[in-house]
Amino acid sequence: MDQTLKIIGYVRSEIKDINSAPKMENEPGAVQVRLELDPEYMEAMDALAPGCELDLFTWLHKADRSTLKVHPRGNKALPKRGVFATRSPDRPNPIGLHRVTIVAIETPTTLIVAPLEVIDGTPIIDIKSKPNKTK
Amino acid sequence: MDQTLKIIGYVRSEIKDINSAPKMENEPGAVQVRLELDPEYMEAMDALAPGCELDLFTWLHKADRSTLKVHPRGNKALPKRGVFATRSPDRPNPIGLHRVTIVAIETPTTLIVAPLEVIDGTPIIDIKSKPNKTK
Repeated sequence: MDQTLKIIGYVRSEIKDINSAPKMENEPGAVQVRLELDPEYMEAMDALAPGCELDLFTWLHKADRSTLKVHPRGNKALPKRGVFATRSPDRPNPIGLHRVTIVAIETPTTLIVAPLEVIDGTPIIDIKSKPNKTK
Repeated sequence: MDQTLKIIGYVRSEIKDINSAPKMENEPGAVQVRLELDPEYMEAMDALAPGCELDLFTWLHKADRSTLKVHPRGNKALPKRGVFATRSPDRPNPIGLHRVTIVAIETPTTLIVAPLEVIDGTPIIDIKSKPNKTK
């Protein structure tokens, strides 16, 4: 199977600058954003509704894919560790994972969600409904 | 940025057949597996240790990337809904997300983890340490 990701849409956010973005969606500074999906995927959004919790997957297009070790949270006082033992955006496949809630559905392909920490223009690659806690 | 995923390793599991695989890692039938990482990424595994909880990202290579609506959990008694309102493997970018725990580290590039529901040979695309619950 081809391993090329399809970009299904883009994040539209007031956060424009990577240096002012918080590191995680559960940190101060994360905001309400608009998710603009490609009309090609309209059918795939059926049954989404305000209040739904989602796992939102983004492609962190500003990340460095060659980085294998980082200072945790960019703190140079802490020793470097492997990127797979962190949530650094710099990693071989810079997939962002964010737990967000649907605030509103503006159009059949436009969702308002919160909270999100990524910058304006970040590509969206997947949306999954929140998992059931137990069977 | 190029949107081609790098395969960082493969799952080695006793589950060989997609029809016998459970649907989620928290369901009966999920097993202990071996993650064989490419030696190219050995440094990125630094600081991983037994007991660590991880978000494991796989590429569900048997999935249908053209599917936009599905019966939830394959149950034809339930009406079809958009794949973004489900966790079906069939979706434009078939990324699998699994919460697993490291049971043992066999070699610098081989992890034993549990529980996992995907079939033997499934490509691995990312590993992230479990997020902090709060700041």
